[in-house]
Amino acid sequence: MREPLSAESSAQLATAFKALGDPVRLRLLSLVASHEGGEACVCDISGSFDLSQPTISHHLKILREAGVLDCERRGTWVYYRVVAPTLAQLSAVLSPESSSPRAQAPTLR
Amino acid sequence: MREPLSAESSAQLATAFKALGDPVRLRLLSLVASHEGGEACVCDISGSFDLSQPTISHHLKILREAGVLDCERRGTWVYYRVVAPTLAQLSAVLSPESSSPRAQAPTLR
Repeated sequence: MREPLSAESSAQLATAFKALGDPVRLRLLSLVASHEGGEACVCDISGSFDLSQPTISHHLKILREAGVLDCERRGTWVYYRVVAPTLAQLSAVLSPESSSPRAQAPTLR
Repeated sequence: MREPLSAESSAQLATAFKALGDPVRLRLLSLVASHEGGEACVCDISGSFDLSQPTISHHLKILREAGVLDCERRGTWVYYRVVAPTLAQLSAVLSPESSSPRAQAPTLR
């Protein structure tokens, strides 16, 4: 039986879960994660949505601010990739039986 | 490289992530998950919050409707426990490198 989350950890993690609580953003995350090389620019993924590029960029910004995606400008385009440690932290919260991911991420306590 | 989520899977999973996108609900989940025997009633966990019991029950209802918690009435109290398959599904979405949890939960694709 592991320790419950503190109020502070819950507030921090809830921000990231909230960012994922939208179908478009969840799909964006999975498109970036599954794209060749582990990164994608808006030009690579906008074709998968019936949404304008500014709308997609807005959702990408929310994912970035939540620490779920990171980005880097190279030439004309901004390339996005997942922030693996954040995803590992979120995943650990959802694994009540396993205490090892929490031991690897003590800032979550 | 795994397949990206479909629009349908994203919509279903986003509902559960949205339910977790609140500090009180995330903490409720962790309190239930870490409680002795893997289940807890409102009486067990309300002391951890500076919130009224109806407010806590409201948040528990949202977690239940999202398929994250399940409940069972026994006598005077309603006991809550985590829905392990739902948490495993959500955790799998956050694990881009591992394809095995997705193979175990094909309905996510």
